[in-house]
Amino acid sequence: MLDKSYKYSIILNMRNILLKISFSGKNYHGWQVQKNALSVQGVFQEALKKVLNEENTEIKGCSRTDVGVHANEYFLSFKTNRCISTTRLPVALNHFLPRDISAIDALEVPDDFHARYSCKGKEYIYKIWNNRIRNSFLDGYVFHYWYSINIDFLNECAAYFIGIHDFTSFCTLDRRNPKNLIRNVLDFDVYKKGNLVIFRVKANGFLYNMVRIMVGTLLKFNKNKITPSKILDIIMKKDRSKAGPTAVACGLYLNKVFYENLDF
Amino acid sequence: MLDKSYKYSIILNMRNILLKISFSGKNYHGWQVQKNALSVQGVFQEALKKVLNEENTEIKGCSRTDVGVHANEYFLSFKTNRCISTTRLPVALNHFLPRDISAIDALEVPDDFHARYSCKGKEYIYKIWNNRIRNSFLDGYVFHYWYSINIDFLNECAAYFIGIHDFTSFCTLDRRNPKNLIRNVLDFDVYKKGNLVIFRVKANGFLYNMVRIMVGTLLKFNKNKITPSKILDIIMKKDRSKAGPTAVACGLYLNKVFYENLDF
Repeated sequence: MLDKSYKYSIILNMRNILLKISFSGKNYHGWQVQKNALSVQGVFQEALKKVLNEENTEIKGCSRTDVGVHANEYFLSFKTNRCISTTRLPVALNHFLPRDISAIDALEVPDDFHARYSCKGKEYIYKIWNNRIRNSFLDGYVFHYWYSINIDFLNECAAYFIGIHDFTSFCTLDRRNPKNLIRNVLDFDVYKKGNLVIFRVKANGFLYNMVRIMVGTLLKFNKNKITPSKILDIIMKKDRSKAGPTAVACGLYLNKVFYENLDF
Repeated sequence: MLDKSYKYSIILNMRNILLKISFSGKNYHGWQVQKNALSVQGVFQEALKKVLNEENTEIKGCSRTDVGVHANEYFLSFKTNRCISTTRLPVALNHFLPRDISAIDALEVPDDFHARYSCKGKEYIYKIWNNRIRNSFLDGYVFHYWYSINIDFLNECAAYFIGIHDFTSFCTLDRRNPKNLIRNVLDFDVYKKGNLVIFRVKANGFLYNMVRIMVGTLLKFNKNKITPSKILDIIMKKDRSKAGPTAVACGLYLNKVFYENLDF
């Protein structure tokens, strides 16, 4: 009994820290800790252990990410008794983190805040290198696609994703899928930046492989000149086989994560 | 005698090919072939051997590059009897080259053309990531420098490099140095692009470590607020110890190589 109450009082006094990081996924098997594979979470946990001098601090990430997927912005939260300042924490972490994972900012948040469950929405971008010649500096950071891309046409297609839909056709069947496959796509546009073509999609939440299948489908529409409104037909069929292929992981970046009333 | 004339006739008939490539120097010990170290030239030679099915084709590069230095544009020339088209050659080479070295374009040039000796000038850029927080995606591609940079001030300093000078103060003593250390700096400017600060310098030729020492010196001037005209004093002293430190290699990119009357 004594032990139990002691533990409880410590939990009551614990600080809840939200940390903003970025990472290149090129050398990692995604965010989630796995056996026999290097994960961003695993590497991060090691660095945090060194900074806090504390064993087994539980880290809650804002989402899973696939092998090779990048994050311009990723949030994680953890609880600690240590009194390190939120200003010093990122500097201390970067000292121990490899250079392809960077702590950007830290913030003390209310006790019930959770990097994943408190998240109100996310934005992903998908980068295509659209040129006959590959780019020597972007291997692992873009999908090299040399077929000509019609940006206006893709925007016309992408607009059909916007709204509240059941995205069964646009997710990979997986035991980890939630029961509810309805998501609200808030924004979806496609733009050019030099030889890069960038797909930007914002939603209240995403399903497994959702962005990559949407991009793969848009590229199929681009190549075969399929009528843009057919996107709606595919959504309504609720059948993964009606959509296009899953675009390769390395072009995908978690770009923004939205929380309410957070001063980041 | 017969052998000799036969060899000569083959040389007469040989095509001289100029190839434009780009490479990320992150994984290489510079351009030049060396024992026990991976070089861009060494890797390129292997790919060319496979494409031409020809042993020991001699490759002439447009310049040496240091360990970790990149090239947005690099030229090399070689002679061959093979009849592969200049359109197909880059495609065939890219099939065998690793993804951080890319063949961009090929051109048949006159017999006396040489990638190095026919070169009329070069342009280098040097990239600095100027932010408190490092960038997870640019490790090995920028010099991370967090001290505040005054772009106008740096441009004022850089202008003193322009002109024909003896650049003894701005080169590393090396047995490979030419006797003549006079170079004509045609252009030198510094500009911002987001969190990147880019130094761009164009000259008829460069000495060993010249750009890196010029950048290191400019950063010293920036930090210590040294009067811009002092650059001229350092040049006139012809003494390496009067200039600033050599900036790290990974920020340096060979950006453009100039030839006369070439249709690239």
